[in-house]
Amino acid sequence: MSTLKNDRFLRALLKQPVDRTPIWIMRQAGRYLPEYRATREKAGDFMSLCMNPELACEVTLQPLDRFDLDAAILFSDILTIPEAMGLGLYFEEGEGPKFKSPIRTAADIKNLPVPDPEGELKYVMDAVRTIKRELNGRVPLIGFSGSPWTLATYMIEGGSSKNFSQSKRMLFDEPELAHQLLGKIAESVTSYLNAQIAAGAQAVMIFDTWGGNLNPAMYQEFSLRYMREIVAKLSRENDGRTVPVILYTKGGGLWLNDMADTGCDALGLDWSTDIHWARQLVGDRVALQGNMDPTTLYASPATIREEAAKILAAYGKGSGHVFNLGHGITPDIDPEHVAALVNAVHELSEPYHQ
Amino acid sequence: MSTLKNDRFLRALLKQPVDRTPIWIMRQAGRYLPEYRATREKAGDFMSLCMNPELACEVTLQPLDRFDLDAAILFSDILTIPEAMGLGLYFEEGEGPKFKSPIRTAADIKNLPVPDPEGELKYVMDAVRTIKRELNGRVPLIGFSGSPWTLATYMIEGGSSKNFSQSKRMLFDEPELAHQLLGKIAESVTSYLNAQIAAGAQAVMIFDTWGGNLNPAMYQEFSLRYMREIVAKLSRENDGRTVPVILYTKGGGLWLNDMADTGCDALGLDWSTDIHWARQLVGDRVALQGNMDPTTLYASPATIREEAAKILAAYGKGSGHVFNLGHGITPDIDPEHVAALVNAVHELSEPYHQ
Repeated sequence: MSTLKNDRFLRALLKQPVDRTPIWIMRQAGRYLPEYRATREKAGDFMSLCMNPELACEVTLQPLDRFDLDAAILFSDILTIPEAMGLGLYFEEGEGPKFKSPIRTAADIKNLPVPDPEGELKYVMDAVRTIKRELNGRVPLIGFSGSPWTLATYMIEGGSSKNFSQSKRMLFDEPELAHQLLGKIAESVTSYLNAQIAAGAQAVMIFDTWGGNLNPAMYQEFSLRYMREIVAKLSRENDGRTVPVILYTKGGGLWLNDMADTGCDALGLDWSTDIHWARQLVGDRVALQGNMDPTTLYASPATIREEAAKILAAYGKGSGHVFNLGHGITPDIDPEHVAALVNAVHELSEPYHQ
Repeated sequence: MSTLKNDRFLRALLKQPVDRTPIWIMRQAGRYLPEYRATREKAGDFMSLCMNPELACEVTLQPLDRFDLDAAILFSDILTIPEAMGLGLYFEEGEGPKFKSPIRTAADIKNLPVPDPEGELKYVMDAVRTIKRELNGRVPLIGFSGSPWTLATYMIEGGSSKNFSQSKRMLFDEPELAHQLLGKIAESVTSYLNAQIAAGAQAVMIFDTWGGNLNPAMYQEFSLRYMREIVAKLSRENDGRTVPVILYTKGGGLWLNDMADTGCDALGLDWSTDIHWARQLVGDRVALQGNMDPTTLYASPATIREEAAKILAAYGKGSGHVFNLGHGITPDIDPEHVAALVNAVHELSEPYHQ
């Protein structure tokens, strides 16, 4: 195992001193990069790219070659688990992901397998191993999964959804059934993330993209509960270092206090939250990751720098902050604007760590 | 002027004692009702329905004939103001509203007229007058407008938007230009709402549908500021009664404290907020309206009743609560489920007012 040359990201997640605030960007390997579009072209469709460890590695490393980022994130999709469960994932042009066999009955749930991470999902672990080797200790590698509730919405709806009519109906009218499904997904996510850690992931993040669409009581019962269970069962060591866990619920700003008590190491914040307020709220319990409005990157480099300065100042002195956007970067961003952000964060954050 | 036979809604907004918790439903005159779809068919397209006072009155009254609702809301659209400003509103099948002439430059903004509510927008005031006459005091009539920021997003983007790339870019890079535009829209909204009040509206609501997409500082500067200005300039009396003002920012749960200080009478809550927590936060300053997850209506009538009971219990004893969904009702809801909700709220709320 090579030594980690830049451990700022891991140190910040554990609130250990750093020389400057680390930064990475959700969806940093993505369509805003011409080199990504070229590799994607080569791969064919999106899932073929995810399923090819060499190409997944290629796109994972692309943003690191352009920008001075402090972490790499496995290039993959949150729908790998339902796909491996046999739901028949497919993409239709101009529409979101779809499943041929949505899950709606007790029999559907009973028949769902818990995928073997080194079986049906071996391509993900191979990607982790390949990326880890190619990174050669440059920066840490982040593994990830969708949250059980977020994955459940796609599985019940049979794809993306505007209103979550089927999945919410199940929570309201058949909560026991929902718990059976969420329990099985949580088991799958746990073994999936543990396998990513065993394959070399040095931190993991759980994306609860649709948790913010639940009411507070249902968020507790159907989303947070399962994330807490997963956190408790994760292997938290790799290469002799702690593997930090980041929880991110989009639209979960009102629930940060409860999220901070799950045993995770850091919370991802979307941009509706004031990071100064969030830091006061969570105290020493967790680090914070975020939280620039992704649309800030449509603005000029000078404005981007000013907005980065505001967020750094709002977090204030000391470690415990990983800079990021509050949600994934959009495809129509100029890469030069990303460079402006990364440089601004590194340059402007030094005084906060002296 | 006929006497108001049911003033529960107005009394609750002013925290005056009521016998039971009033209820109305955002988008209660809408596509989930077969009689609405029939009138819409008769009118032709959506804007023709809005622009025909007789038909707008017809659909406004339809839900009142079916359900024991405590308020009527003017049937109209938030885009009437930009339409009257001459932006060339049109609808394309399967897509959202669009404008032929989006507003992006200082010259565009300078040339924008402030519409005359009894001129270009007379059809709206005629609808208010017609509905008021036909209501004949059954329940109060609510007038409404979009918030300046929400209207600005459509005007700058030229229609609906996923990322708000143009409008956010203006806020970040050309804040002075944005303020010029928002100021002109705020002036238009003020005169539009005052004209609705003069025409007979007994309460008004400002829908800040996209305020929750701003970061906290920008919400203050570009959305809340203009709503505060409007509230300060509204005529607050009609038929010898106070005209209450309701502010609703979707996704604004973190900012309720500031919203409560605008001088409005009530805050609309989406379902991400715990109404018990919100009541403690706002204290005696404002009443609260909401906040059932609209997808609850996909569940069984028995579940709908249980969920209504939870919200009533969370608000607790005393006046100051107007029951509503946390967002508009979706088109695929069974009207019988709405009946179950309305009856549940009336039946179950009585003990909280004894």
